[in-house]
Formats: sequence, C-alpha cells, structure tokens
Amino acid sequence: KEAGEEAINKRTKKRFEPGEPVMAEEMLWCGYCKPCVDGFPNHCENLQELGFSVPGSFAQYLKVDAKYVWSLYELTRKFEGEELFLAGSLVEPASVAYNGIVNRAGGIHPGQNAVVVGAGPIGLSAVNILKHMGAARVIVSEPSSVRRECAKKVGADYVIDPMKEDFKEAVLTYTEGMGAALYIETSGVGDIVIPQIEDVIWEAREINSTVLVIARAPKKVPMNPEVYQVRRARIIGTQGHSGHGVFPNVIAFMGAGLDMRPIISKKITLDEVPEYIKLLQTDKNQVKVTALI
Amino acid sequence: KEAGEEAINKRTKKRFEPGEPVMAEEMLWCGYCKPCVDGFPNHCENLQELGFSVPGSFAQYLKVDAKYVWSLYELTRKFEGEELFLAGSLVEPASVAYNGIVNRAGGIHPGQNAVVVGAGPIGLSAVNILKHMGAARVIVSEPSSVRRECAKKVGADYVIDPMKEDFKEAVLTYTEGMGAALYIETSGVGDIVIPQIEDVIWEAREINSTVLVIARAPKKVPMNPEVYQVRRARIIGTQGHSGHGVFPNVIAFMGAGLDMRPIISKKITLDEVPEYIKLLQTDKNQVKVTALI
Amino acid sequence: KEAGEEAINKRTKKRFEPGEPVMAEEMLWCGYCKPCVDGFPNHCENLQELGFSVPGSFAQYLKVDAKYVWSLYELTRKFEGEELFLAGSLVEPASVAYNGIVNRAGGIHPGQNAVVVGAGPIGLSAVNILKHMGAARVIVSEPSSVRRECAKKVGADYVIDPMKEDFKEAVLTYTEGMGAALYIETSGVGDIVIPQIEDVIWEAREINSTVLVIARAPKKVPMNPEVYQVRRARIIGTQGHSGHGVFPNVIAFMGAGLDMRPIISKKITLDEVPEYIKLLQTDKNQVKVTALI
Amino acid sequence: KEAGEEAINKRTKKRFEPGEPVMAEEMLWCGYCKPCVDGFPNHCENLQELGFSVPGSFAQYLKVDAKYVWSLYELTRKFEGEELFLAGSLVEPASVAYNGIVNRAGGIHPGQNAVVVGAGPIGLSAVNILKHMGAARVIVSEPSSVRRECAKKVGADYVIDPMKEDFKEAVLTYTEGMGAALYIETSGVGDIVIPQIEDVIWEAREINSTVLVIARAPKKVPMNPEVYQVRRARIIGTQGHSGHGVFPNVIAFMGAGLDMRPIISKKITLDEVPEYIKLLQTDKNQVKVTALI
Repeated sequence: KEAGEEAINKRTKKRFEPGEPVMAEEMLWCGYCKPCVDGFPNHCENLQELGFSVPGSFAQYLKVDAKYVWSLYELTRKFEGEELFLAGSLVEPASVAYNGIVNRAGGIHPGQNAVVVGAGPIGLSAVNILKHMGAARVIVSEPSSVRRECAKKVGADYVIDPMKEDFKEAVLTYTEGMGAALYIETSGVGDIVIPQIEDVIWEAREINSTVLVIARAPKKVPMNPEVYQVRRARIIGTQGHSGHGVFPNVIAFMGAGLDMRPIISKKITLDEVPEYIKLLQTDKNQVKVTALI
Repeated sequence: KEAGEEAINKRTKKRFEPGEPVMAEEMLWCGYCKPCVDGFPNHCENLQELGFSVPGSFAQYLKVDAKYVWSLYELTRKFEGEELFLAGSLVEPASVAYNGIVNRAGGIHPGQNAVVVGAGPIGLSAVNILKHMGAARVIVSEPSSVRRECAKKVGADYVIDPMKEDFKEAVLTYTEGMGAALYIETSGVGDIVIPQIEDVIWEAREINSTVLVIARAPKKVPMNPEVYQVRRARIIGTQGHSGHGVFPNVIAFMGAGLDMRPIISKKITLDEVPEYIKLLQTDKNQVKVTALI
Repeated sequence: KEAGEEAINKRTKKRFEPGEPVMAEEMLWCGYCKPCVDGFPNHCENLQELGFSVPGSFAQYLKVDAKYVWSLYELTRKFEGEELFLAGSLVEPASVAYNGIVNRAGGIHPGQNAVVVGAGPIGLSAVNILKHMGAARVIVSEPSSVRRECAKKVGADYVIDPMKEDFKEAVLTYTEGMGAALYIETSGVGDIVIPQIEDVIWEAREINSTVLVIARAPKKVPMNPEVYQVRRARIIGTQGHSGHGVFPNVIAFMGAGLDMRPIISKKITLDEVPEYIKLLQTDKNQVKVTALI
Repeated sequence: KEAGEEAINKRTKKRFEPGEPVMAEEMLWCGYCKPCVDGFPNHCENLQELGFSVPGSFAQYLKVDAKYVWSLYELTRKFEGEELFLAGSLVEPASVAYNGIVNRAGGIHPGQNAVVVGAGPIGLSAVNILKHMGAARVIVSEPSSVRRECAKKVGADYVIDPMKEDFKEAVLTYTEGMGAALYIETSGVGDIVIPQIEDVIWEAREINSTVLVIARAPKKVPMNPEVYQVRRARIIGTQGHSGHGVFPNVIAFMGAGLDMRPIISKKITLDEVPEYIKLLQTDKNQVKVTALI
C-alpha cells in the first residue's frame, strides 16, 4: 500500500512512506477562519476535536487529514518498537505544556527557577520540559504523594505537599528567597493557588515573573493587580497545542532526550477500552494513525 | 556659567551647554541593585522619588544627578519659549503611559483598536500616544464629561459615559464586534472595570488582547482566567517611567507631533504653589532643572 | 445574488453580504505545508501567485478562495465610491511594507528615527506607515526628484538625493548624530546601500538598529559584521504580505487615516490594460474581487 | 573582617558575608551614559575592561566595585573547594555565549537544531548551553581534532572537520534536511563561514533561522540578502556579557548542571603566570575576587 497524492509528510515534503510512524493533532482547525489565517489555530472559530466532537481515539485506525499528522521519525533516535509509540502517545500532553511555556510565556532564561502547581499529565510534562530547558530549580506543589513521586522522576528538584506545607514559605526557602520566573497553574483550583503565587511573587526577589494558567476552571480568582505592577509581572492564559511548530519541535525534543514515559501509570489493550468510539474508514489521502498498543 | 565635568548630556555625549532646556526623571534609581543592573530601574530596590522621598519640584532650581536628566532639545522642533516648558512638563505622565504601552504591553500593531478606561493625566496620555502609534480606534470610558471632552481633544474616536452606557455594548458597537488589542485600566477601580473588560474580550472577535493595569488600587479583582485562555489574552502590570529609552523617545515623539498640551487645565506661578518644598543648592556636576513657568 | 455557503467573511464570521467591497491576497498559500501550518504563509512551499503563476488581475472579475479575501468595509470610515477602491488597490503594497516593518522588524518605538532607501511603491508605503506609527523623523534617499517629492507628500521629514549628497553625512545631520532605529532597503541596490547604512550605524549614537531588506536583488553585499556586534544591530530579510493579521490591520489602518493615494501616479481603464490575462469564471463559494476602476 | 557598607550582595540584598565566593564582570560599564541607562551596559560609551584598560586578573586580590560582583553561592549546589572556583572561572566565557544566544538571538525553541562554527572557549560554551536548553542536535564545525573531541564532551551530537568534509552536505545530512534554527559563528573567519551557512539555510527546510556572529573579525563578508528574505532569516551581532541578568542566570544554570569544566585544558599557579599585572589594594566597599587557584 502507498500513501495518496495529497498525503504529504511535512517532515520530508513528500508523500508519507509506508510504515512511517505518525501521530495526529487532536484539534482539527479549519484553516480559513480569521484566527487560523492569522496563525492561531488553537483559537479556530470552527474547531472540531478528535475523539470529542468527531470520532477518533481508542481505535486501531483513525481517519484524519494529512495536515494534522506529524511524523514520529525523530523518536527513532531514542526509541523503537512499542516504546516509540508509548513515547508518541505522550506528544500531545507534552505539546499542551510546551505551547504554554514556549509560545505563550516566551520560555524561561536558563538558570531561572520555575514552579508548577499540580502534577497531572500537563503539570508533569511542564516539569520535564522545564528541566530540559535549563531551569535551575523546578518546584512542584501537589497533594498526591504518588504524583509527587512521579514529579521527581521527571526532574522536579523539590516537591511540596500543599496540604501540609506552607506554599509561600516552601518556595521562598527552596529558591533562597529568589522566587521563580515562571509559575504554572495546572491544578484546576486557580482560585486558591493564584493568590498564593501572588504572595510569593510579592515577597520574592525576582521581578518579571509570569503566571501561566493552563488548567481550565470556571471559578473567579481574587487577583491582586498591585503584585503585577510592583513586581513587573503578568498573567497569561493558554489553550491548545497546534500551530507555531509545536508538534514537530516536541517530537524532536523527545527524540533528543525528553523522556516522558515515567508519567505512564498503566498500559491497556484496545479490548480493555470502555465501549467508546470505534474505528473509521480510511482513504488514500488520509493517514492512518496507529493507536498506542 | 558652565556645566561641571560630570554633567554629561546623554543626547550629545558632551557636557550640557548652558541654556539647554532639560527635565529630570522623578524616580531616582540606584544603579547598583539587582533590578537596576539587570536593566529594570523602575523596580529599583533603593528607589528615591523626587518631590516625595527627597526634596524636589515646585522650585525654581532643583539638584539632581546628571544621569537622571534629559535634554528637551528635540522639543524645539515644534515648541519655543514657555510652550516648550509646558510641553516638557508633560513628558513625565506621557512616559508612564508610554512605558506601559510600549515596553510592558509591547505596543499595538497599527490598525488595531484600543480601549482606555479613565481619562486622567495617564489615561489621556495613553489616548494621545495610541492615536499617534496608528491605533484604528481609541475608545475612552470616563464618567466626567470634562475629561471625556479632553479625551476627544487628544484623539479619542469614541467616548463612553460608564454611568449611563453599557461598556460592553458600546465597545462592541464601536469596534464592529472586533474588540480591542489593548485595554488600559487607569481609573483606579479595576475591581469593577477589569471584569467588564473581560466580558468584552470574551464576546469580541479579537484574540491576543492585553489588559494593561497602570492605576494602582489596593482592591482585589474577581478575575476570570478562562477569558485569558480561550481568547489567548493576558494581564500585565506596569509601574514607572525610567529606563528602556522611554524619556528620550517620548521627548522626540513630542518634538515630532505628539502634542500633550490639551491636557493642561490650569497654569499657576511658583508663588501660587502651596508651601511645599523649596529649592536646593546646586553644584557644578549637577544640572539645574528649570521648573515650568 | 448571494454568497455561497463557504464564502465566509472573516470580518463578520458570516457569509459575505452582496455588495461588500473586498480585495484578495496575491499569494495563494496552500495551508497544509510545514511553513503554512506553523503560521508562515509567506514562505509556503506550494505557493501560487495571482496574476503570475495563476490567472488574475486586470480583469473585471476574479475567482479566488474566500480564505484569501478581505473585506474593505473599514475603508468606508474615510473613503467612498471610486476613492475606496483606489485606496483598496494600495492595500497590497502597503501590506508588504507593513509586514516587513511590523512583523519582521518588530516595529519601532514611537520617537525613534527611520531611514528608507528607495521611494518606489514599497518605499513610499514604508514612509507613510512609519510616520503614522510615531517615527520622529523619516528620511528618504532616492535619486528621482519626482519620487522624492512623492515621499514628502506621504510624510518624509527629509529627502536625500544620493547622487548629489553624502548619505552618511545627511543622515547624521538630520538626526543630530543619533542615526535611526530602522533602516529599510527598498532600492534593489543593496550592495551599494547596505555598506553605506553600516557606516551610519557605526558612527551614530543609536544602538539596536535594524536593517530591513525588502527589495530583492541577486547581488552579494560586502557586509561588515563588526558593525552589528559593536552597535548591537541586525539584518533581517522580509518577503510577502500574508498571515499575521497583516491585511485586516492594514485595511483598518487606512480606514483610520493612513492615506496611500498620493502614491498613485496614473489611473487607467481596463481597456487600456495591455492584453494580459482576462477574467475567470466564478462560482458561489468564491468571492468576486472587483478590480479597481 | 567584614564587608563595607556599600558592598551589597545582589543575591541577598545585604552586605556580602565574609567567605562568600564571588566573581566579577570584566566589562566595567559606567552606569550613566545613554546605552547604560537604557539597559545596554555591553555598549557602554565609557567602557573600561578589567585586565585590559584597567589592572585586574592574574592576581590574588582584585579591587572592583560591588556592582560588578556576583556571588557564586549557587555553584555550591554542585561544586565545592577548588572545583567551585574552576567552575567560577568559566562563568565569563559562558556568559558571552549565553548573552548572544539568549538575549540577542532570543534563544531556541526546544527541539530545534543548532550549528556552532568554531570550538574555542566561546564555541564550546555555546554547545554546552544549547544542549542544556533543549536543542535536538548541536553540530560543531572545527578543524582541530582536539577541540572537536572537547566539543563532544560538552554535548555536541555531531562534529564536522571543515578541512575534510563539505559543511553544507554534512549539516543537511545530520539534520535530515531540516537545517538549524540557530547558526553561531565563533571562528573568526566569518568571511568564509557565513556564506557557507547561507547555503545551508537556502537548501534546508527550516525557515526563521538566525545567524549569530560572536567572533570579531575585521573582514567583510560577501552576504546574500535573498537568503534572509526567502528563508525569513536574519543576522545578529553580539558583544559582551553584562546586564540582562546574564551573570546570575549563568551561575544558577551551572549550579543546576551546566558543567563547563571539560573545556579546561590546563591549570597553572599564579607563579606560573607570565609577568602581567599584579594585585591592587582593596578597600572596605569593594569586594575581593579570589582568583582561581
């Protein structure tokens, strides 16, 4: 079998070769609305989502336009066989964190500190990415001890149990009073967490801090604008993972050593998947995305 | 009389010429703390303020280190005599707005819209600057009719009386549903205003909006993080006017046509000044700043 | 007649209304190659060009995908009738200059100076844009006296005849020794011009200058890297006008006062057009672009 | 003994503690010229250089203003004793590379590739920094086999011998045709190297590449502007290491794992130093910088 004429591999500018491992974006942006043509597909006005608004995921084959598909070839530098697809399955959460850190927050300068609140898949991805970007210290606040342990596995220098420890005191202690350049909220309780972050920023030496909000939550946050004025700080929201070179960069980053596999807690077969959506037909110009396992 | 050896004019790299009109920064940054050496004098850890923590202002002569003094020479392109010093007296408020808009918010792209809440000296400066930077529409919200009129004089395309009109509806109507790239809070009631701005951002077409908070106020703002995520937006605080080339840029900007004089509501003589601080001795290496009038 | 289902107006998020004045991008980017999905359509790997590689221009009707079409509605703030379409015909050259200045060079800070070499359509557009962005001085170097006059009409503060005047001395004189933040090469003789610009940067006070190269020319430039090191400068190339919100921003900018019409030197009817490409059929989902006149 | 009143440690905002290990910037910027007050001390108009224009280096004690001194405390996370000072002696070359990469070129996005030409102290520092910032591949071109080996020790993924291999072919092969986001010239033969880099950029898939020129050389470079236009690229010059938080960031970066010691080829005692400058008296408000060994 061979790929259709329009099944172009963005990595090579040619048709996909049979057998090239690939993955797909989850956000199906239209490409013709104003945000899309301006370069912001994560804010597409006609967004469809694979596995949500359209069928996809938990299937052996998946039909998706070639423009949403990215080659996992770069992963072959570090991984092979099943391990490659396990790593590949983690590109998406890593891309959400990467998009927030790199494109929205503008990254960090190597040697600066970062604080990540929450150690779910996105928080853990953020920790891992930040350590591989040169963060001097990454501090994680997370109530679950299992997740705190996982945070250490992906590089956290210090972990805080916010149920038992004082967040502000802990961050100030671990950073020698300096605080962090980047604070990432991935916990979903921003109404509690962001005011605590503001307290740290207020007392810490670092100016120019960014508070990056990734986790969505419908609650209002009692925010203190003076902190952002006096400490030259800002709050930025982020959404999505598409565009801006995020996917190919994340895949190459993983192929060069960003190992996300420690965040996998369980592997299941397709048969073990609850009765969700099943398979869609493919056609020649659309690329098969082999689901993990 | 001539200037002392260390009274260097940053405009010419030589000693000040006798008679060169000048003005001084109000923030006396130390130049050796961490924020200062990193390039952020507005966040100096040893800040003194002219006319506040140290004597200055409302005096015929003022003693201040040459490094805080800027030549008004560029104003001679448009102004002369008393008018030049009147314009010069407005460099400082304009610099506060300029620093927020240009250095903190990163400016606007010409053709984008902006909304300014509050039409005091800083808000009016912001309006004037934004119109001269190519803003397609600048909309001002201000309860005082006198100030609304003044806003129109410095370029506001539309004014809103927030006591009588619905802010959100007005902004959406005036921008044809597009909203603005930049929203500036200068009113001091951010707790009321910022949630209204968020409502506009949520409904408007523009993504990538910035909320710039200039007015200081000690009240918490009930902030909605989802707005910043879904609309790719951010909140930034700003403070001060020093560093980053702000003063020389603002002076040259005024010399090229940014006329701030419409915001002057009254001129008084030094004799009419309430019994504040008076004059300080000068020495040769420090430059006299001739007070306006 | 009404617009087809997919003929969506990016301005309104609805189908185009009959009679809405529009214009089209000239670069037909594919939307699925790597540069396109990363947000850089000007560097599309499958680029087609209207009137060059595909038929278009100098026709009463033109067939083009809705995603390349932009409403001129914002021009109705300043223009009507034929004048609106004359202004509309100048959106494209203005967009080339705008893309270079705003997206590639990162704009200027209001109050900074700029130098434009060459006063053809792109150079004149650059002058006009820069003056409306707050440039303190825009200096134009151009051998043709007709074009120098036109440069003054669109805002040039000073013009230089490089055949008779010394470029370096003139720029240093007109800027009081400061030089410029932005130097734009639109003349096509970069091999002569860029070394002259470097000489100015070397002697001028301004650090952080940018040399923006818009005109394409196949000649090598004898470039002096030390200038860029010692003066903290850079050279940037630019190409195209698509993406990054350029078209809607330029249209809104013009609707708010950027008047490009002084650069029109002659108006002709379609009958007077040499026998070039003629008309293409339209269909419902593609939008008619009414050619100027 | 204790530190003088004005010998403030920027790390703690208090006087230096006796025994705190420190290092000094080499560039003694004035703090009051226009570039300095604008935040660009590397371009100080009154620059003095330690060990060049003023005495310093190769001495047991050194007198230098506290504002140029940075605590090495963060190095204690990884190093102790002599090793700490060996690492400390490498902060300066690392800072030159860091300033170019992070502040001038704006860093890289993790997962992008980089090419470093020349493997002297600055080139090797660049390699090491880039690998710790998440570069997918760092490729080094260097004729000396000893230096190529050293490049591998600090993280180079591939090395090229430009005397025997074709630079362009090698880079395209090692990057799978993608090329690099950042090309750094540290060899001093930019007139040969930069045109070769341009050839790679022209053929590679990557757009938005930056050519960063660190090594100073008085030779003109035959530069091809079309490469920068068609490939959306730029050339940036860099000079110095001061300001912008560079020193404290580099020190913290090293304390977190950036090990520069493999670039040390020889250790000597002060007695072995050729008869250069010797010791200066110290006073209470100036900090002793203990020379390495």
